[in-house]
Amino acid sequence: MAQALTSDDLAFLDQQRIARLASIDAVGFPHLVPVCFARVAGRLYIAIDAKPKQGNPRDLKRLRNIRERPRVALLIDEYDEDWSRLRWLMVRCEAAILEAGSERATALSALERRYPQYSAMGLTSLGLPVIALEPVLASRWSATPL
Amino acid sequence: MAQALTSDDLAFLDQQRIARLASIDAVGFPHLVPVCFARVAGRLYIAIDAKPKQGNPRDLKRLRNIRERPRVALLIDEYDEDWSRLRWLMVRCEAAILEAGSERATALSALERRYPQYSAMGLTSLGLPVIALEPVLASRWSATPL
Repeated sequence: MAQALTSDDLAFLDQQRIARLASIDAVGFPHLVPVCFARVAGRLYIAIDAKPKQGNPRDLKRLRNIRERPRVALLIDEYDEDWSRLRWLMVRCEAAILEAGSERATALSALERRYPQYSAMGLTSLGLPVIALEPVLASRWSATPL
Repeated sequence: MAQALTSDDLAFLDQQRIARLASIDAVGFPHLVPVCFARVAGRLYIAIDAKPKQGNPRDLKRLRNIRERPRVALLIDEYDEDWSRLRWLMVRCEAAILEAGSERATALSALERRYPQYSAMGLTSLGLPVIALEPVLASRWSATPL
């Protein structure tokens, strides 16, 4: 469970449609992509979907990185030209790749509920893996105290 | 110079007000923060400003990480509920911290021109370091061919 996250953190996560996921690649560079996500209790889930990328989706760099180095970080933030409204939350997580099982099924359902786009593409039926993130430690900042 | 970046990449960077910067911390987790940035020719610059953080701004984790591990990545992306409009650009960079000199001065001026918020706080006069990013390798993706 996400002892790392406060109730304010969970509410902020639930408001956001997009996050950025950082992993670390084989040569020691961070690797960074925007991701959609869903929360189920204290864990966060990211789908590997059927967007038109080259080749086998299981070979995506974020998956190779995670298999070899499961320490990742997820960032959510809101930009506003009024900088007194800036806020972010960075969650360091241990990542795992779910290829089958009930946790994966629950995560896919949550992703489909949250994103009609996933529902429309039949995400659950695509047979693809899900990235599960277990929050370990969070850092948070807001320009104005919450 | 940024041979790593195409003219489309440069135009996309210039459109964005915010990016996300990933570094790697001492225990091997990625560290991720939203950043404002300015481009001068092929390099990207990030200010350390006077936002209310605890303690000495030179001790910020992103600066400590960069001093020890200069390989970072910067992500820009646009989220849209119409997923056919999604696009991102991830730039792996070698980072350096500029404490003085003409490159730092040029970067601070560019940041003040781009962000009236920086100009209003007198960024140039704060005497703070600037992170300089030299692009090494870029990855890009768009749901619809550009």
